[in-house]
Amino acid sequence: MTTNEKALELHKQWNGKLETVSKSPLKSREDLSLAYTPGVAEPCKVIAQDKEAAYTYTMKANTVAVVSDGSAVLGLGNIGPYAAMPVMEGKAVLFKEFGGVNAVPICLDTQDTEEIIKAVTYLAPGFGGINLEDISAPRCFEIEERLKEILDIPVFHDDQHGTAIVVLAGVINALKVTGKKMEDCKVIVNGAGSAGVAITKLLLTYGFSNVIMCDKVGIVSVKTEGLNWMQQKMAEVTNPNNETGSLADAMKGADIFVGVSAPGIVTKEMVSSMNKDSILFAMANPVPEIMPDLAKEAGARVVGTGRSDFPNQVNNVVAFPGIFKGALEGRAAQITEEMKLAAANAIANLVPESELGEDNIMPEAFNPKVAEAVAEAVKSHIVR
Amino acid sequence: MTTNEKALELHKQWNGKLETVSKSPLKSREDLSLAYTPGVAEPCKVIAQDKEAAYTYTMKANTVAVVSDGSAVLGLGNIGPYAAMPVMEGKAVLFKEFGGVNAVPICLDTQDTEEIIKAVTYLAPGFGGINLEDISAPRCFEIEERLKEILDIPVFHDDQHGTAIVVLAGVINALKVTGKKMEDCKVIVNGAGSAGVAITKLLLTYGFSNVIMCDKVGIVSVKTEGLNWMQQKMAEVTNPNNETGSLADAMKGADIFVGVSAPGIVTKEMVSSMNKDSILFAMANPVPEIMPDLAKEAGARVVGTGRSDFPNQVNNVVAFPGIFKGALEGRAAQITEEMKLAAANAIANLVPESELGEDNIMPEAFNPKVAEAVAEAVKSHIVR
Repeated sequence: MTTNEKALELHKQWNGKLETVSKSPLKSREDLSLAYTPGVAEPCKVIAQDKEAAYTYTMKANTVAVVSDGSAVLGLGNIGPYAAMPVMEGKAVLFKEFGGVNAVPICLDTQDTEEIIKAVTYLAPGFGGINLEDISAPRCFEIEERLKEILDIPVFHDDQHGTAIVVLAGVINALKVTGKKMEDCKVIVNGAGSAGVAITKLLLTYGFSNVIMCDKVGIVSVKTEGLNWMQQKMAEVTNPNNETGSLADAMKGADIFVGVSAPGIVTKEMVSSMNKDSILFAMANPVPEIMPDLAKEAGARVVGTGRSDFPNQVNNVVAFPGIFKGALEGRAAQITEEMKLAAANAIANLVPESELGEDNIMPEAFNPKVAEAVAEAVKSHIVR
Repeated sequence: MTTNEKALELHKQWNGKLETVSKSPLKSREDLSLAYTPGVAEPCKVIAQDKEAAYTYTMKANTVAVVSDGSAVLGLGNIGPYAAMPVMEGKAVLFKEFGGVNAVPICLDTQDTEEIIKAVTYLAPGFGGINLEDISAPRCFEIEERLKEILDIPVFHDDQHGTAIVVLAGVINALKVTGKKMEDCKVIVNGAGSAGVAITKLLLTYGFSNVIMCDKVGIVSVKTEGLNWMQQKMAEVTNPNNETGSLADAMKGADIFVGVSAPGIVTKEMVSSMNKDSILFAMANPVPEIMPDLAKEAGARVVGTGRSDFPNQVNNVVAFPGIFKGALEGRAAQITEEMKLAAANAIANLVPESELGEDNIMPEAFNPKVAEAVAEAVKSHIVR
């Protein structure tokens, strides 16, 4: 069987990948009288008096909703809420397996920004956090921002911030490997969608000053036409030298390239035009912006991709389970910039200095220490 | 520890009662590549081409949402979505333990009929059915009816129909025990809320003709003032002799009393005024309309309650897990009146004729055959 056939078979075998299971025994009338009527009335009464008690007596304490409208699923595009389910179930499974966090996939049958905001607001009481997923830009920005204002639980768009955190972790270690200094680096982020915007923001927050975004139109500047409101905002805080031109122009003399864009759009010539010891994260999936061997031939020193069959896999799975684990355990009301930076540092630090190398900048996804370390980092930055 | 203390302890022990668990192994990179990227794209693509494939490749096939707005929880009233969670989690746990059906509690932070309808419509793609729960009357009637029109998956308000089905099952067996004939019976249903309305409707559908509803105002007739729209509708199809007066008046000469009302409102005198071999279902919880021993002293032959510490417990748990199990396995688009009648007959038939008796008209909730039998009955009545 091919991988694709195996994947179909796996999903068919048990009708999906996730199930709900009772933590409470239900073998006797007494069990039933405690977990259900009449005993269940007691925690209800306590919570009715004090909403906070929901964290003690219900699954809210350790459960997130994985919410999508199916508008930007993987590289498949706007395939809608039904077809998005396998991804959201997969995400839910990873939350539990890697972070010990319960997760429920919720695929919404609307792509209207206001309706999504209302629906998520309404279903929030039973959840301790909201993981937004695969919602197209620029709607995802408004949906996340508005929900963060409305809700008192963490709201986190993983395509944005999960990706940004693992990229920053990789960048931190790539700087160590190459000996480059952050303040000297010219950084190109190609792809001004949800991930590209979040990566750029987090790199700026971390301290990079010369970050240039590119998109299909080439270099994004304040003069670029046809930008959406978020891209316009980003144009104002990036590209300090007001460069113009194509992606190829942008990459000349750059130190770091981060691609969240399209397969094969970076050439060897473009890599060769970068500074010495260049760092490339070519994360288009499943085919990267440039294949690692070509990038290396062209002079790149550190190359990461989204794939597990090359070194330096930049994979959200090292971030989101630990981030929500920490946020839920610490009862964070929001996932702040400080928590994101702390998570990135924690992920970077999971690769011991002695083992760091051009082909080893990211921790292994299956390392059980990952979520624990990320969670601790997140918890230590919760402000009350 | 008292039962109440034990119940609180149970809910605190693991923060609620329900967890999400992966059915798919996640121990290797290959597992990850099948359950998540890149393999997960395959079922997504198949479903994008054919929505029906969601039943093959996702948890939709065997998962229901247990949806409440917390407006009418147990006997506690309008305690809101946070305080309703322990009940919805409990319900979800029962769905899985008794029916093998996965269930997700969704407590909505709105009590606006239109907003609830929209929210449930939006979150429906990932679910194979919607179990509405603890939503106050008359809003529950409109919410259920409208959702049944909108959605292509079963929508079932358990407080209405689950209760009605188990009451009818009990009535069927009580008729056998007492030798009463349906066509001779005068039936009083006290409490014209969600359960009372649904019980009355199902008794009429089953074939009873002389059913009288009562509420706080006494006997409900077409002339009664202050009825909501559903009660008005019920007044038109019940009380064929246009009786008027109090509950005590109604009960004179009645054969069957079904109470879904308030503790202790039925007196021994009222029971004594009923016909010989009277049948009482006194289901106010936790304190029934009349205690079974008093009812028996007053001449009742068969007495059921909602409690597990008396004989003849009339408990929804013998209905809803099997109903959704059958509806999901048979891919029913709706739960029809025929399916409800079939479920009631199946439940009644689970008590063998040889074991039937005044104190044994209901099957044991823990009998593993119950959900199976109900599911088979439901499946055999699915119309395509």
